[in-house]
Amino acid sequence: MGKQGVNVGIIGFGTVGTGTARILLENAGVIAKRAGFPVVLKKIADRDITRDRGIPVPEGILTAHADDVLNDPDIDIVVELVGGIHPAKDFILQAIANGKHVVTANKALLATEGADIFAAADQKGVEVCFEAAVAGGIPIIKVLREGLIANNMVSIFGIINGTSNYILTKMTAEKAEFADVLKEAQALGYAEADPTFDIEGIDTAHKLTILASLAYGIPLSFDAVYKEGITKITSEDIAFATELGYKIKLLAITRAVDGQVELRVHPTMVPNDYLISKIDGVFNAIYVEGDAVGATLYYGRGAGDMPTGSAVVADIVDTARTILHGGKRSSGISGSGSAYTIRQMGDVESMYYFRFSALDQPGTLSKISGILGKYNISIASVIQKGRSASSSVPLVVLTHTAKEKDVANAIAEIDAMPVVADKTLVLRVEGKE
Amino acid sequence: MGKQGVNVGIIGFGTVGTGTARILLENAGVIAKRAGFPVVLKKIADRDITRDRGIPVPEGILTAHADDVLNDPDIDIVVELVGGIHPAKDFILQAIANGKHVVTANKALLATEGADIFAAADQKGVEVCFEAAVAGGIPIIKVLREGLIANNMVSIFGIINGTSNYILTKMTAEKAEFADVLKEAQALGYAEADPTFDIEGIDTAHKLTILASLAYGIPLSFDAVYKEGITKITSEDIAFATELGYKIKLLAITRAVDGQVELRVHPTMVPNDYLISKIDGVFNAIYVEGDAVGATLYYGRGAGDMPTGSAVVADIVDTARTILHGGKRSSGISGSGSAYTIRQMGDVESMYYFRFSALDQPGTLSKISGILGKYNISIASVIQKGRSASSSVPLVVLTHTAKEKDVANAIAEIDAMPVVADKTLVLRVEGKE
Repeated sequence: MGKQGVNVGIIGFGTVGTGTARILLENAGVIAKRAGFPVVLKKIADRDITRDRGIPVPEGILTAHADDVLNDPDIDIVVELVGGIHPAKDFILQAIANGKHVVTANKALLATEGADIFAAADQKGVEVCFEAAVAGGIPIIKVLREGLIANNMVSIFGIINGTSNYILTKMTAEKAEFADVLKEAQALGYAEADPTFDIEGIDTAHKLTILASLAYGIPLSFDAVYKEGITKITSEDIAFATELGYKIKLLAITRAVDGQVELRVHPTMVPNDYLISKIDGVFNAIYVEGDAVGATLYYGRGAGDMPTGSAVVADIVDTARTILHGGKRSSGISGSGSAYTIRQMGDVESMYYFRFSALDQPGTLSKISGILGKYNISIASVIQKGRSASSSVPLVVLTHTAKEKDVANAIAEIDAMPVVADKTLVLRVEGKE
Repeated sequence: MGKQGVNVGIIGFGTVGTGTARILLENAGVIAKRAGFPVVLKKIADRDITRDRGIPVPEGILTAHADDVLNDPDIDIVVELVGGIHPAKDFILQAIANGKHVVTANKALLATEGADIFAAADQKGVEVCFEAAVAGGIPIIKVLREGLIANNMVSIFGIINGTSNYILTKMTAEKAEFADVLKEAQALGYAEADPTFDIEGIDTAHKLTILASLAYGIPLSFDAVYKEGITKITSEDIAFATELGYKIKLLAITRAVDGQVELRVHPTMVPNDYLISKIDGVFNAIYVEGDAVGATLYYGRGAGDMPTGSAVVADIVDTARTILHGGKRSSGISGSGSAYTIRQMGDVESMYYFRFSALDQPGTLSKISGILGKYNISIASVIQKGRSASSSVPLVVLTHTAKEKDVANAIAEIDAMPVVADKTLVLRVEGKE
């Protein structure tokens, strides 16, 4: 007689651990009915087992020792919700070594050390599932790996960091400056005390690394992702974007071009009539275009105890099915054999927004446009407002499609001009030419 | 040694059949790489095997006889893309009887005769998959059945008929009348010569039947769905909706209320700031709210050869995994045992929009509001434009939450008044009170 259900052990009883436990306890009935078997929460390990998490934890399942989960022969699936690199990686490798399947929400770990983990899991014949690592409750991993399996991927554009989307949304709605909104977001718990990963695009790049590997079969390539955060965006840029019919969004972009894959994270001007420009606040959305399915989009909460717990539990049930019925699924993360190479950022083509801080002297626009022309950057439109011979005024230029390395060279040359008072702000622009 | 791949036979070489075949042929490489095994298109049956479908079909796979697919011992999966009830149902039942797994895009068949089909499949131990039956390329079946498995469903609101959404979008953008836009849609191929299923909400109800069964574990209950189409919507109603800050959308709605499930399809006024109000043209979108995940939304093309083919092929690969590894998955469609019963339409509560065609005589508004009050229908706002003592003028009323059966009684009484020149147009309104 085979197994009739699966036992789960959680390591890490923080926000997501609490949400996952709550769902496994409170929704056990509906989960068992749909899955066809029970999922039993057997143990939860955390250094702090005294704090009240607001859920009724059954007697005797809490432990202060991760080993109590990792070495319990009755536990089939270890859920790693500690976060960070160490000891999370050690826990996962130990679980794999012990023949247990793993479910994790740890995007930073997978993006940077995933190759080791998936190799160990493949060798041991266990699964490492990570639906909760990207976009919280949105089942985007399942969508890419299974739902759109028939498609060659054209492109993915994602708003996958709720903190930065919240900040940009607030800056837009309230014409506020970055620093003020960040402080407010921290006070509300939408941004951490050290917000670097969120506002510098690093968290977004972790998630993009995973999405791109699934979409294009390339190895996990976090180091190759171009990363630019939102700290330089001013309310002035947002006002110009609004005037021009755009929203500014921090996008994760991966796109196939001539056998190469772009990997980039940066604030982007998105036309108001694009659905993804309408995604506000802490919500996430991922636009996925496939060669067969065409344009699709997936929207939901990218963080939080219950949304992320929803994704963790979905992974648990899928893995349980493997345990009960056999047929280990591929992670979809592959070390080699992709049809694609990674495109150098310098070769990426885009439209651009430049905000020059130039002294309003005769010939300034002429000199700037001369340099742009020299680097094959063609101007689509210009906005100049206010006049001042002594202080700098913003000069905004939108370009036609140009090459990233030409833009870098042109801007370096322009920023060295005596009439340019401050570094030029550069944004990439999506939309039709 | 087990099987190394699966063989597929398609019955029905129309639009979706052609898209499916094209994907299986052109994307065979990427599919095999991701799946880990090859999927081979072995036969295609259609009455017409001479018409050029614009794809290079391998020698010898076309046949004019469905039996050549159904009785081929080498074929593992039969893909039914004939549409309609008969002979599609007979083909599927024969495939099941022959021990073959089935993939179908046939929403009308599943919604009305699905119980027979799933019972036969369960008895024979084969799968019947139907991702392509709802919302074309959007993997909404997978999302509900697997991605959100941890959730008690709160509600689903879907734009799942591209034809009617195209017509409403055009009516809104061009201030045009229904009949004119329908003609245009027919000329463009967005609406069929007999558009009844699309414009009367029947196709939407077919799909809602499937979604509600998955979401709430209720039996397929097409007959219990309240169905109202878009034929009575005038450009005047759309103008009023616009003025009030709403879009009019044909929505499929299922929602849990006090242990009961609402099942209804009708044109609905949706606030402009709801994401689903921004879904335009032939696109589909499904808003799904779960108790853990919160609000999510899934967007894409709801029809067409390649998008629907994308969903068919995803089902084929999932089914192939079952064939190769074992572990038949549940359809998620259950005949009994749901925690929910179906709510009678008369018990449904909503806000309402009424457009009365009343003669502008003293006391008319007073009489109408008196009748509304008698039925516990509370007025939120009133718009009256133009004055005419001889002909009727539109009188628009928005209500607070009221009960469907009270509304039906009130409107019947109002429409019987001598000063009311024409039947009152009633729309349900979503949004916060």
